[in-house]
Amino acid sequence: MLYIIGLGLGDEKDITLRGLEAVQKSQKVFIEAYTSLLSFGISSDGLSTLKEMYNLLQEKLYGKSITVADREMVEEKADDILLEATSSDVAFLVVGDPFGATTHTDLVVRAKKLGVDVKVVHNASVMNAIGVCGLQLYRYGETVSLPFFTDTWRPDSFYEKIQRNRKLGLHTLCLLDIRVKEPSLESLCSYRGKKQYEPPRFMAVSVAIEQLLEVEQMRGENAYTEDTTCVGFARLGSEDQLVVAGSMKQLLEVDFGLPLHCLVIVGDTHPVEEEMLDFYKLAKNQGQA
Amino acid sequence: MLYIIGLGLGDEKDITLRGLEAVQKSQKVFIEAYTSLLSFGISSDGLSTLKEMYNLLQEKLYGKSITVADREMVEEKADDILLEATSSDVAFLVVGDPFGATTHTDLVVRAKKLGVDVKVVHNASVMNAIGVCGLQLYRYGETVSLPFFTDTWRPDSFYEKIQRNRKLGLHTLCLLDIRVKEPSLESLCSYRGKKQYEPPRFMAVSVAIEQLLEVEQMRGENAYTEDTTCVGFARLGSEDQLVVAGSMKQLLEVDFGLPLHCLVIVGDTHPVEEEMLDFYKLAKNQGQA
Repeated sequence: MLYIIGLGLGDEKDITLRGLEAVQKSQKVFIEAYTSLLSFGISSDGLSTLKEMYNLLQEKLYGKSITVADREMVEEKADDILLEATSSDVAFLVVGDPFGATTHTDLVVRAKKLGVDVKVVHNASVMNAIGVCGLQLYRYGETVSLPFFTDTWRPDSFYEKIQRNRKLGLHTLCLLDIRVKEPSLESLCSYRGKKQYEPPRFMAVSVAIEQLLEVEQMRGENAYTEDTTCVGFARLGSEDQLVVAGSMKQLLEVDFGLPLHCLVIVGDTHPVEEEMLDFYKLAKNQGQA
Repeated sequence: MLYIIGLGLGDEKDITLRGLEAVQKSQKVFIEAYTSLLSFGISSDGLSTLKEMYNLLQEKLYGKSITVADREMVEEKADDILLEATSSDVAFLVVGDPFGATTHTDLVVRAKKLGVDVKVVHNASVMNAIGVCGLQLYRYGETVSLPFFTDTWRPDSFYEKIQRNRKLGLHTLCLLDIRVKEPSLESLCSYRGKKQYEPPRFMAVSVAIEQLLEVEQMRGENAYTEDTTCVGFARLGSEDQLVVAGSMKQLLEVDFGLPLHCLVIVGDTHPVEEEMLDFYKLAKNQGQA
């Protein structure tokens, strides 16, 4: 049996009792390290590291050793993981909910093709935890992803989607780029030697807004302006989460601190949504909802 | 402190360790009974009742008594609950995640106005757990709600929204009506005496599809047809969940069993989405993902 277990968004205490039971009865435990482990591995004081977090998980909570599965491992060695799951219980831990990112769907598909039974243990993900700001989840349009712009690559396909959502009065969740264990350019260009990796990068709310405004300036179709109300989130779901509402211009000046960040572009609001947003507006913010 | 704690979708084991800790240190514990407790209160064999579930929660897990807060209580006595939270720790348990339904936003707004500190403990909700069928969450358009039609009330504002989503190739989550503790017509018409309530009702996938097809027939704009691929879900997130993909016509014939049900109308699909959906298509289905 392969258990794919969502860990939720905060720390080791966000696993469910069902998830913990599955971990405890599994002979082998993997934890995915590539989608959004940053949030899970960095505590509010910025001092604890992934390593410490694993130790905590291992010793205090699970009582067994955990293998960190990075992107390469999951993509290249999935069949080894799945082979183990044919004859024993294997737990695969993911941050958030198992179906926030494509790769886990892929793992399920591979498992099913090999005849491995799969059980999913759900948990909170960014896709529902953003509800904390008071904007109703059923009033969101299509979600967009904002990639890091480079000198030569500045894709803007998110623009039409945001424009469409806003014309319909819908809110837009912007997922911000995360780059973990990206092979370095040097490493990709060399034929031999150990692979080198870029340091991890995550997009801050301010960078997201800068990129959004750059694209608006180029396109000039008024999908949004610097006065458009947004909500910025940092470390959503953890004890020290920060939620701040304000215009794009205002949020540009807010230091959201450690990752992960995400951004919501607000559409038309109902009165209850408005009342709740008010609590997060600048000057009154910093509170945990 | 008011803790608003998501219980997740399955049973008492879907609470998180963080949520359980908060319950354990609270002096008073409420559980909301009006949004979607049906799923939480009915086990796979259909024998256990809400009462038994509370007993289980109380005795096995929480070690303290729980007050069931029905719609009237939350709407009329919210201030009493909040008053207690000014001087002690109060836990308010909700099925799914605290921000799936409007009313909990309302409770937070009231709490903040009274100066009561609020902490939210997130969990899985229908809004993200539907990811289990393999359709990517970021490819959903606006969510719609399907209300029970009556002889005289057959609202169809969901039609435009579905049509819009489908034109854009997006999936549509349809939340199906739940009627719990609705005052009976007789009771509303009488001036005195104890309030009487209708028996609880929940919309089945087949009823949802009948209503959808009825509206399509009236409107005739081809937003969808009986051949449109959909995914039906029953008891999403619990051990005996059922996920079946097929055309509307096919799903009409499937007995999804006990509540809660929901329905996804499929938009354009990517190859990985398609592969995953195949596992749920009729003849191959019944498996738990």
